[in-house]
Amino acid sequence: MGMVGGGRGAFIGQVHRMAANLDGKIELVAGCFSSDPEKSRLSGQDFFLDPERVYSTYKEMAEKEAARPDKIDFVSIVVQNHLHFEVAKTFIEAGFNVICDKPMTHCYEQALELREIVRKSDRVFALTHNYTGYPMVKEARRMVRDGELGRILKIVAEYPQGYAVGDVEGDGQGKINNWRSDPKIAGISNCMGDIGTHAHNLIRYITGLEITEICSELTAFIPGRTLDDDGNNLVRFEGGAKGIIHASQISNGDENALNIRVYGTKASIEWHQEDPNELIVKYANAPRKIYRRGNDYISEAASGHGYTRTPFAHPEGFIEAFANIYLAAARAIADQIDGNPAPEGGYDFPTVDDGVAGVAFIKATVESSASDQKWIKFPAV
Amino acid sequence: MGMVGGGRGAFIGQVHRMAANLDGKIELVAGCFSSDPEKSRLSGQDFFLDPERVYSTYKEMAEKEAARPDKIDFVSIVVQNHLHFEVAKTFIEAGFNVICDKPMTHCYEQALELREIVRKSDRVFALTHNYTGYPMVKEARRMVRDGELGRILKIVAEYPQGYAVGDVEGDGQGKINNWRSDPKIAGISNCMGDIGTHAHNLIRYITGLEITEICSELTAFIPGRTLDDDGNNLVRFEGGAKGIIHASQISNGDENALNIRVYGTKASIEWHQEDPNELIVKYANAPRKIYRRGNDYISEAASGHGYTRTPFAHPEGFIEAFANIYLAAARAIADQIDGNPAPEGGYDFPTVDDGVAGVAFIKATVESSASDQKWIKFPAV
Amino acid sequence: MGMVGGGRGAFIGQVHRMAANLDGKIELVAGCFSSDPEKSRLSGQDFFLDPERVYSTYKEMAEKEAARPDKIDFVSIVVQNHLHFEVAKTFIEAGFNVICDKPMTHCYEQALELREIVRKSDRVFALTHNYTGYPMVKEARRMVRDGELGRILKIVAEYPQGYAVGDVEGDGQGKINNWRSDPKIAGISNCMGDIGTHAHNLIRYITGLEITEICSELTAFIPGRTLDDDGNNLVRFEGGAKGIIHASQISNGDENALNIRVYGTKASIEWHQEDPNELIVKYANAPRKIYRRGNDYISEAASGHGYTRTPFAHPEGFIEAFANIYLAAARAIADQIDGNPAPEGGYDFPTVDDGVAGVAFIKATVESSASDQKWIKFPAV
Amino acid sequence: MGMVGGGRGAFIGQVHRMAANLDGKIELVAGCFSSDPEKSRLSGQDFFLDPERVYSTYKEMAEKEAARPDKIDFVSIVVQNHLHFEVAKTFIEAGFNVICDKPMTHCYEQALELREIVRKSDRVFALTHNYTGYPMVKEARRMVRDGELGRILKIVAEYPQGYAVGDVEGDGQGKINNWRSDPKIAGISNCMGDIGTHAHNLIRYITGLEITEICSELTAFIPGRTLDDDGNNLVRFEGGAKGIIHASQISNGDENALNIRVYGTKASIEWHQEDPNELIVKYANAPRKIYRRGNDYISEAASGHGYTRTPFAHPEGFIEAFANIYLAAARAIADQIDGNPAPEGGYDFPTVDDGVAGVAFIKATVESSASDQKWIKFPAV
Repeated sequence: MGMVGGGRGAFIGQVHRMAANLDGKIELVAGCFSSDPEKSRLSGQDFFLDPERVYSTYKEMAEKEAARPDKIDFVSIVVQNHLHFEVAKTFIEAGFNVICDKPMTHCYEQALELREIVRKSDRVFALTHNYTGYPMVKEARRMVRDGELGRILKIVAEYPQGYAVGDVEGDGQGKINNWRSDPKIAGISNCMGDIGTHAHNLIRYITGLEITEICSELTAFIPGRTLDDDGNNLVRFEGGAKGIIHASQISNGDENALNIRVYGTKASIEWHQEDPNELIVKYANAPRKIYRRGNDYISEAASGHGYTRTPFAHPEGFIEAFANIYLAAARAIADQIDGNPAPEGGYDFPTVDDGVAGVAFIKATVESSASDQKWIKFPAV
Repeated sequence: MGMVGGGRGAFIGQVHRMAANLDGKIELVAGCFSSDPEKSRLSGQDFFLDPERVYSTYKEMAEKEAARPDKIDFVSIVVQNHLHFEVAKTFIEAGFNVICDKPMTHCYEQALELREIVRKSDRVFALTHNYTGYPMVKEARRMVRDGELGRILKIVAEYPQGYAVGDVEGDGQGKINNWRSDPKIAGISNCMGDIGTHAHNLIRYITGLEITEICSELTAFIPGRTLDDDGNNLVRFEGGAKGIIHASQISNGDENALNIRVYGTKASIEWHQEDPNELIVKYANAPRKIYRRGNDYISEAASGHGYTRTPFAHPEGFIEAFANIYLAAARAIADQIDGNPAPEGGYDFPTVDDGVAGVAFIKATVESSASDQKWIKFPAV
Repeated sequence: MGMVGGGRGAFIGQVHRMAANLDGKIELVAGCFSSDPEKSRLSGQDFFLDPERVYSTYKEMAEKEAARPDKIDFVSIVVQNHLHFEVAKTFIEAGFNVICDKPMTHCYEQALELREIVRKSDRVFALTHNYTGYPMVKEARRMVRDGELGRILKIVAEYPQGYAVGDVEGDGQGKINNWRSDPKIAGISNCMGDIGTHAHNLIRYITGLEITEICSELTAFIPGRTLDDDGNNLVRFEGGAKGIIHASQISNGDENALNIRVYGTKASIEWHQEDPNELIVKYANAPRKIYRRGNDYISEAASGHGYTRTPFAHPEGFIEAFANIYLAAARAIADQIDGNPAPEGGYDFPTVDDGVAGVAFIKATVESSASDQKWIKFPAV
Repeated sequence: MGMVGGGRGAFIGQVHRMAANLDGKIELVAGCFSSDPEKSRLSGQDFFLDPERVYSTYKEMAEKEAARPDKIDFVSIVVQNHLHFEVAKTFIEAGFNVICDKPMTHCYEQALELREIVRKSDRVFALTHNYTGYPMVKEARRMVRDGELGRILKIVAEYPQGYAVGDVEGDGQGKINNWRSDPKIAGISNCMGDIGTHAHNLIRYITGLEITEICSELTAFIPGRTLDDDGNNLVRFEGGAKGIIHASQISNGDENALNIRVYGTKASIEWHQEDPNELIVKYANAPRKIYRRGNDYISEAASGHGYTRTPFAHPEGFIEAFANIYLAAARAIADQIDGNPAPEGGYDFPTVDDGVAGVAFIKATVESSASDQKWIKFPAV
């Protein structure tokens, strides 16, 4: 694989590399790790790369790699939000498969355009909505899809974080670092784009339900911030379910507390990212059940396919879940290279369509928040 | 004390009696336990009462008790919602102190009128918003009032229950029993009136913040129901805090999961009714602290005043919290009888003003839910 | 009822009174609350008693009450350990039923003698091993007795507290108050007698298994203490199960963390006194189940018989469990007074036999701890 | 690196490879993956190795690798217990650094001999007592070493598993697979050797305390088993602390529930392997604190040195902890290769001395269990 972005000191690039390394089947061999050629070069050294395959610009990389007989099988794009589109476009059009960080693009129009580009190509395009890589999220999805919850009535998804609260009182602590609060780079939203979209994606992955209408209130609590650091949304789903999605970066002391509750007519489920190896299943008149990763009673989707790597109660975490996105995308890429057909049921990674839905969510929350109208229609997905 | 309502088989009447009994200082001596005189009589036998003081109607009770030299010190009103107003009015006007179940009245207009009646009298009027009786809720209030959380930014209060979900699919299970779904008795709302108002009261008690605007969506998920069994509300508070209040009776498998999170600029707190002896305090960059009832490090308000009856980790629960409302109201009544002034800082029980606020909340959610306007103003409290 | 001991400021007397009051069926009418007649008299005033029935000595009380036509139905004995025997003996021989605090007697020989006295009388004798009053402990017992766990292999019961740790370093904090560390009053053990015996009783109540051999190490960690403040025991049960019982008063920061795990060939259970409304059931290859008090799926024993007073998730605690001992004993006393036969299956409260077993446990741990022999036989129960 | 053992289908070999891969700095380049040369060859293909460096015997591997200019920097030994000694000896004597699975050797005598061999060489020898790799275990160690707990009084370490319970009733389920119950391969103990030794190692790592005397009862609950599947131990530590170590493979429904509680005169700590990102700190009269991995308030040892790879609340698990053993050993190996001195404070991985202590623990429990003597002396460590 190759990588664009993610040089020295970049957190998410390091996560992508650990996720790719984990199973010993993907090797980083090329990259353009920074817009600063010297930093890119030094990062390449850190990763033991052939200097010839460490590039100064992503365009050079796409061009030169495309010309190599041993060219990379895919590229990981971990640059800032506003560059996702052009880098992805460049590599897809140069014939490469792509694994791209989220949100997929800087705006909704780019998302639609990128989808067209991907559709016209026959390349694999995977988006790292990594929380769907957790085995117990996959088990939750299976339960809903198999009807074990009955009809879905209500969904509550939360993503509270507190890391950006400090500056509220102007004490210089808790800055949302660098570019996340800059609309030119981050796009029209900070909190909804950075984490709200993960909560939205989790709902869609588990339940398959799309939002039809939304009523949002986004807030920038920290004086001087132009983009939201908190957002509360009432949502209506196709088929009549109702829901709440709220995400926040000013929820003091919450760490990365993404969680979801799905309430159905037969049963309900509850999953917490900070305790990811468990899935709580609740019933009207029967004891609650605690499903735990790695047990034989967990379905194929969660326990097989390599999505779980250790026995029960040998905890797996964030990196392993992230690696599951790579694992599934790598299967699709390998099948494409080998000319194999897709397996029945398809592959299990977020696609360009999920990317469009995510960017539509961001757009909808921002528009609703600015509106006096109670409900606004969700953009076409 | 005397009691109106709460005869054989009535759950909440039994709770009131246990709460009153607990500390051995309040004795039930009179009552009108049912609109059916025979049932009232038999209930009086159950409670070992003098048959002379078991009445057929609440009016008879008010009149005859008022004429006795050993008349009751106060009456507990545990009738159905739509009768609260007239029973309370009758007893206050007959010179009795009143402890009344919530919601205070059937509608907002009655609430305002009852407040006038109470204000004109010098009687004690206490409302059993019982969840504020929990010691750790009192500790939470103290923390907020003492500024330990800094400025409040966001509040999330939830009250999910699942007991009324069964009928969703017409299987005859899970009925909301009897009168709760009947507007003539329950009022304009079921779920907001029965439990949503507890969540609202909890916010007010802990933070002292009033809602200024609200955006609600109430739903009757069960076909044939006329009143809501679920409600989601976005709220704005005075001073700029934002919040979410949601309550539900169709949250399958949730039992009585009232909880609140209050996020401030310095710290945040989290409390769960199902684990009431703990209060979680979270910080941006310090270990979380778990405050536990009964320890010396807990403030006077929580550990003293008799609001806690057992040492740490000898769990206290629902009845003890309920008894704390009785305890505080009984103090006010005793002071009134003895001609003592109120203590500095006043008494710690929900008042007629809290009752007005609760009924205003119900009114606001129903009106907002029916409106296309995004935000509606909260009624005067 | 009458009470011996438990005057002003005595914690356990207050608990007994709250437990007796809770259901509104037991009334305190007489007592000798202190060996100091004046303190006894003042305590009687606190409890609104007829001064004539507040006595200066327990002997006077037994004598005078026995002579009254409206004499008490039973007496609660809440004096210090070393007086249990003589007070109980006096009242039983005067024809009264007795509810007595634990440990039953000061030594094993007294326990055997008291058993003889109780057996020869036809009086009800109940011991307040209160932790068996919790509904979910009763459910645990039912599960084991119904064979849902299969054959019992291993039992681990713990009772760690930390309240007595402070003095370890001579800082004057954390004293074990007053008489508990005085062998003349407390008996041959402090920690095993005060709390270890609760853990032992819990095992016997749930599983019905008796210890056959024991290997103990008791320690007095605080310099100057003559009695143990910590004890670890390996135990062997009849039928081949093995176990561990440890209790401690120097487990810094633990509050009242009594808990038990029972491992069987089919399933295992786990219960924690600090979270008493839940019972965790674990299986080799099926999801864990969380049984919660008050649900319809809980057996009669736990949900019926009045042993649970509030619906699910309206937490019940220590006082309610304590009240269940009173409730069951009161049934036996009422049946005796009314001349009714005992119900099928008997009554559900700790008896004089449980008292003997408890004192035998204390004796065994102390003897084993002083011995070089690995295993010592458990005394006859 | 090279590997001996761990071919296709071997769980622990796969864990070692994932742990080695994670940080992208260690590459598997040679191996002898099975005693079956064909299986070794096929495993080498799975791992994309040069066929020339896939060997048929470990002796061949040691010899040929030693002769290569690009020889491996170290070998990972993941063969069955009884072969650890001879493989480790071979590679050390051939000049290689070694990372070896635990228990270190088949018996105590081998352990002493291997220690001599390692001491005489200047090779790095690391043992994968992997649970000490968890960041919060490192934080616990730092707290104890910094005196934050005061003097240690009591230690309770548990390691209950339930996977081997099924066969108790002869139903053919729950077998302890293959060689673990075979004394020729596993050694003198199954349960103490496989998991008890982890609990023992955890105590030593965190507290630095050595056992002086032990009193054990090991049991083989499953009929026909010759080696223990459960063990309970009372222990005495140097300096006067007391403790309990119990481990079990027949604790039905427990998964991998290793946990430790360390009680000191100032504070106590509690850590659970199934919730590894948290460390609970308890005090006599202050709120409990929950320390969570990845926060700035966590010490260098836990948050720096690369021992934590993701921000707070992006859960890390078993593989990451395992990788920390590799990370620390790799540092020592790199320093040795580069001729750098060891850092102040040394390296943070289990050494040959820890291996001797572990094998001594196994020996002591087996001997004590067979003895009528209450306390036996712990072997020299």
